[in-house]
Amino acid sequence: MISRFFKNNGITRKDVNLGIGDDGAVVTIPDNCQLVVTTDTLVSGVHFFPDMDPRALGHRALAVNLSDLAAMGAEPAWISLALTLPKADIHWLEEFTAGMHEIAEYFNVQIIGGDTTQGPLTISVCAKGTVPTGKALTRSGAKNGDWIYVSGPLGDSGVAIEAQKGKHELTPRHLATVKKRFEYPSPRVAAGQVLRGLASAAIDISDGLLADLQHILDLSGVSATINVDKVPVSDVLKEALTPEEYLPYVLSYGDDYELLFTVPEDNKGMLEINLKQYGVDAVCIGQIKGSGGEIELLNNEANFEFRAKGYKHFS
Amino acid sequence: MISRFFKNNGITRKDVNLGIGDDGAVVTIPDNCQLVVTTDTLVSGVHFFPDMDPRALGHRALAVNLSDLAAMGAEPAWISLALTLPKADIHWLEEFTAGMHEIAEYFNVQIIGGDTTQGPLTISVCAKGTVPTGKALTRSGAKNGDWIYVSGPLGDSGVAIEAQKGKHELTPRHLATVKKRFEYPSPRVAAGQVLRGLASAAIDISDGLLADLQHILDLSGVSATINVDKVPVSDVLKEALTPEEYLPYVLSYGDDYELLFTVPEDNKGMLEINLKQYGVDAVCIGQIKGSGGEIELLNNEANFEFRAKGYKHFS
Repeated sequence: MISRFFKNNGITRKDVNLGIGDDGAVVTIPDNCQLVVTTDTLVSGVHFFPDMDPRALGHRALAVNLSDLAAMGAEPAWISLALTLPKADIHWLEEFTAGMHEIAEYFNVQIIGGDTTQGPLTISVCAKGTVPTGKALTRSGAKNGDWIYVSGPLGDSGVAIEAQKGKHELTPRHLATVKKRFEYPSPRVAAGQVLRGLASAAIDISDGLLADLQHILDLSGVSATINVDKVPVSDVLKEALTPEEYLPYVLSYGDDYELLFTVPEDNKGMLEINLKQYGVDAVCIGQIKGSGGEIELLNNEANFEFRAKGYKHFS
Repeated sequence: MISRFFKNNGITRKDVNLGIGDDGAVVTIPDNCQLVVTTDTLVSGVHFFPDMDPRALGHRALAVNLSDLAAMGAEPAWISLALTLPKADIHWLEEFTAGMHEIAEYFNVQIIGGDTTQGPLTISVCAKGTVPTGKALTRSGAKNGDWIYVSGPLGDSGVAIEAQKGKHELTPRHLATVKKRFEYPSPRVAAGQVLRGLASAAIDISDGLLADLQHILDLSGVSATINVDKVPVSDVLKEALTPEEYLPYVLSYGDDYELLFTVPEDNKGMLEINLKQYGVDAVCIGQIKGSGGEIELLNNEANFEFRAKGYKHFS
């Protein structure tokens, strides 16, 4: 089944010496590069609604993994797909693979193998990429004084999910826009590669801005001040909701797959110019200050109280 | 959770530049080597009984993937684990990780990352290894006249599964022995590396001897004759069952994770000597003959009729 749907589609990379159809795949790593590996699993009812459009699901399953490679500054190359399905639904599989192939083609990624099993709908992708030796971005390099950036607006995906559950009434146009952000996230692959050598730390925002910032702070041993009013928010959220309504999504919902990164003062100018060349409107939202892993929130320079709520997204 | 159970255990390889705890892992491939990648998923109720001993399950989940790397002639190095669990059962996790770490340590394999999600019990492993460039074993190199080998006795796992379902009455000692073969399979990693440069094709026996032989025949464009009476069978199967009872397991059940491989006449002597040095009692069970993908079965030189039955192993 894997063969039928995944072998004769998608792209063929020259560095894939043996693809789908044997006990394993064989690929060649470029000279002076390291291998970067990441795994993300999407479970029906936990990470997406069971009736999610299979084309979007195929896109999203790959996108969330490419986002992790982006956060490492890696160039995506190969993926392995473990797909568990309740039944062999041909239409569903066609749509799912079409969605996955579209984004794979866009990022020049080849599916080199996998395993299809019968069971509750679960999609696990192991994505592999390469990075020049020693140039991988990590979560642990943020230093006192570094500036904190996000690569784009946050909160849309969370609003999409909760609106579908009936929590917010959006116009059809607003709903379609935020739903697309959830279903077809754009992993910031080019941005990640631009950050190599310029950013001091990076992470992709999957758990929520504050939770993912906390990962950087904990691993780097630093604290941060975030200007809540500077965090980019889409026009849709500003039109459809009040700040009180949308800020929890922006600060703590996650699922947006933008990059969060820190940049030393000396690299700030170069980084902004380089990112603009790739069409990435990164926004400076705060600064690393002191040690201890604390996050200080300011809203228009006043202290801002915010307690993150635990969401159970899809159940 | 991944961190707690998988980070501070197991081995630390020098070629792992960044392990668990970031967006991705970073590893270094040795010079003049290619990367070999394989993925296998085990679903509760499909690939194992839901109440399977978690320590055995941890072993088996890794073993079936190392077996694929063995069939490629690769040296195992790193694994990514996607673990989906109904609930966080600490005792279960401790046992599962202990089982996985034991075999990982034995084969010098490091868990470099993964994803733990909530949902129906599913274990998906993406195993990575290395092979000297151009030396990977494939399924497609078998040539007319090559000898066909298996690396050890077949059928024990299948008998273990069906005995647990009540199909056969075994003595406690017999049941314990075959159950161990199912629960703690030994991937033929050393044998696989010995085969490099000597075997013309290789596969691991997961689907059953005849089904996996068929993969080699189809990809190599050849036919084969198998001497059924030569296929190695354990003493337990010979003691507990009649040949009519055990042969279906030996020929078509799978789950044993021995290697099936083909060897040109010129390499036969060298291969047998080398395998013996690693304690592998490989047995010659037939020969590649002609083209067309046909399998001829002989039993004590007489034609042998066998129609593979479809098993539904665990449901």
